[in-house]
Formats: sequence, structure tokens, C-alpha cells
Amino acid sequence: MTSKKVIELFYDVVSPYSWLGFEVMCRYRHVWNIELKLCPAFLGGVMQGSGNKPPGVVPNKFMYMTKDLKRAAEYFDVPLQAPADPFEVMFKKGSLSAMRFVTAVQEQEKGGDKLVEQVSRELWRRIWSEDKDITEAASLAEAAKKAGLSDGVIKDALETAASKEIKDKLKDATQKALDYGAFGFPLLVYHRNGSPEIFFGSDRFELLAHCIGEKWLGPRPNNSAAKL
Amino acid sequence: MTSKKVIELFYDVVSPYSWLGFEVMCRYRHVWNIELKLCPAFLGGVMQGSGNKPPGVVPNKFMYMTKDLKRAAEYFDVPLQAPADPFEVMFKKGSLSAMRFVTAVQEQEKGGDKLVEQVSRELWRRIWSEDKDITEAASLAEAAKKAGLSDGVIKDALETAASKEIKDKLKDATQKALDYGAFGFPLLVYHRNGSPEIFFGSDRFELLAHCIGEKWLGPRPNNSAAKL
Repeated sequence: MTSKKVIELFYDVVSPYSWLGFEVMCRYRHVWNIELKLCPAFLGGVMQGSGNKPPGVVPNKFMYMTKDLKRAAEYFDVPLQAPADPFEVMFKKGSLSAMRFVTAVQEQEKGGDKLVEQVSRELWRRIWSEDKDITEAASLAEAAKKAGLSDGVIKDALETAASKEIKDKLKDATQKALDYGAFGFPLLVYHRNGSPEIFFGSDRFELLAHCIGEKWLGPRPNNSAAKL
Repeated sequence: MTSKKVIELFYDVVSPYSWLGFEVMCRYRHVWNIELKLCPAFLGGVMQGSGNKPPGVVPNKFMYMTKDLKRAAEYFDVPLQAPADPFEVMFKKGSLSAMRFVTAVQEQEKGGDKLVEQVSRELWRRIWSEDKDITEAASLAEAAKKAGLSDGVIKDALETAASKEIKDKLKDATQKALDYGAFGFPLLVYHRNGSPEIFFGSDRFELLAHCIGEKWLGPRPNNSAAKL
């Protein structure tokens, strides 16, 4: 039994706002009395399942997002840099193999989620900071290596990532997000007395804090988080 | 000459998130060293001009917005209540005559914007709190009366609202918003050294505060604002 409030974070490394949400929640898991559950899922499936369209198809929205992301990344102290061709990266190459890989890492990891956290961060860093590929096996291995995974774990995760079990696990996580009402990521699900309360995007932290009875202390609640 | 930072607020009373943004900015205009310029405009024209679609057409998004609005309205202390049929109210009846009326009031008002502020608030209260009409002349007159406008001003505003001058003024304000990059409302435009920096929605106040070098003190920076 724990008195901690459970918050699930559904995310996909293809989504830049997810990165902001992920880093903020990874900081606050050490500040608020919460149990943060990392839920890697597939944004493409959520967009298709909900019938939502990417915001970037409206020119003014795309231009705004570009600026808003830059501004928010600075404010949240996340080293986010848009890739040269965001459309290519997000919609043509996508993140299916990457999210299967993260799911495989999660399946292997016992007693915590340090590896999932680190490997997710390194994948984001590749795609949303260094404009590098995240679709090839070698790219995934490189990110995992930087994340501190052993060669054995990396090899296993690359192999199992293509298995039916892992594919189904990612599908299930994606469906779970849809069932909560997702139409995009990041999605935060706070389980208030067994009833889920959802927060979409990276601009509801103050409201989330209010709902869980905690205090929002800005993007950097502890200085330890300043360096990724 | 003034050292105040100029912030324009583009809004339409058909938009519930605009109400939240409007009330928060009306509170902070007395707290931050800013000059707030109220810019009534026509959301329908912005959606059409930018090619954007209302978020409510995706079912999960519509359900989320309903909940998010309720939660945010409580947090921001704005007595917002969804009308029985939001689609009818927002898309069938719309706000063209109401925004022309607000524009006509603004055209008449000299030396301030108290009347524009009050009449906008009373129109929002009708549509987004009391589920009342805002399309008929009698409805506009009733809102204006509650807002403290004299019978003479109301009569004049109702008459001039249909004039070419006022129609053009509203069109120009809407076009101005589009030129800044609008794809929805509320839109806040901060003029940083002559270069406009835009903030969309009612979830960037903390970031706006950071950009203008002020402190975000939560939704109620002064208790005087607790009662609308």
C-alpha cells in the first residue's frame, strides 16, 4: 500500500511536446508525492484511432508551434532543436520501431524504470536535438549505449522489439491511451480515487499540481535537474 | 512616452478559452507593468482565413475540452458553464453581430476601455454562463445595460454596428490577428522591441510573464478580482 498519487505519462519520442512533459514530470517525481508510471506508446496509433490531424497542417499553427516549442524548450531547460525537416522526421520516418524498442527495454527492466527513462531521453535527443535517425537498428543501439544499457540488454531488446509480444504490448499501451480519451501526446493520467483525470500537452502542470494538492514550483523545481 | 509593455489581446465572445484569457489579463493589467489593448475580432474569420478546423470535431478532443474548460474555469475563478448545445451556439448562431456590437461600443468609447471590457464580459456571461442568446438586438441591449452602458450609447451602438465603417473595423482587426499568425483565439501579442511575439490560448501566462520580465502569481493575483 502506498499513499502516493499515481500518475501515468503516455508519450512517444517523435513528439517534441512529449519531451518537455517527460522532463518536467521526471523532475517532479522527486518533488511531489507521486508515483510516476512511464507509458511508452505510439502516437501514430493515437492520431489514427482518435481521427485527429497533426496541428502542423495549418500553416499559421505550424509557424506558431515552431516558435512556441523553441520558447518553451528554453523555459523548461530542455535542449530541444527542431530537425531540418520535421515533416520527414515525424510523418515519413516516424517512431514505430523506436517505440517498440523502448517497449522491449521496459519489458526487460525489473525494479524500476531508469533504463526506460534514459533510453527515451537519448532517443529524443537524437531526433529532437541532433537531427539524427531513430529508425535503424544501429541508431537505436547507439542511443541505448549512451543511455547506459549493456550490450546484452541492447541485443535482446533489438531482437524482441520485432516479436508479437512486444508489438502487442505497444498496441495495448496505445489503446489504453485512446480509452482514456487521448487525441495526442503527452497525456498525463491522474488516478483520482480510481477515476482517471486526464491532462493533455505540456501546459497543464500548474493545473495538475492544483488537482493533486501539490505546489507548482516552475520548470526547475530542483537544480539537480538543470543538466540533462 | 510610456515604459509600459504593450500587449494586445485578440478575442471573440464565442470562444470560452478567450473568456479565461480575458479575465486573467484584465486582472494582471493592474499587477504587471503593461498596457493591455483589448482587440475584439471575429473568430469565424480567423478560422476561415487560417484554414483551421474547430477542435471539437474530434470526439476525444471535444470530450477533453469539455472537462478541461470546467477544470480551468474553476481554477481561474470564471463562472463558465457550457451551454446545452455548444455546436448550435458556436457554429450555427455564431458571434458576428455580437462582435460588431462590441466593435461599435469600442468606436464610441473615449479615454479608456471600461465599457468594452464590461460589455464583452456580459456577452460572455450570457453565452458561456447562462446559455442565453447573443444574436438578437434585444440580447445585445440587455448585456449592454447590465454592463452599465447608457440607453443612448446602446441605441447608437446597435445602429452603427451594421454600418460599413464598423463592419470594416471588425474585418481589419480580424485580418490583423491573421497577419500576426492567428489560427484561433485568444491571441496575445506582446510587442517586444517592435517585434510581435504571439501567445495562443489560455495556458501560456507563466511563459508570457517570463518573456516580459514579470512574475506569474497564479490565476488570482489580487483578491479584488475574485468577484466578476
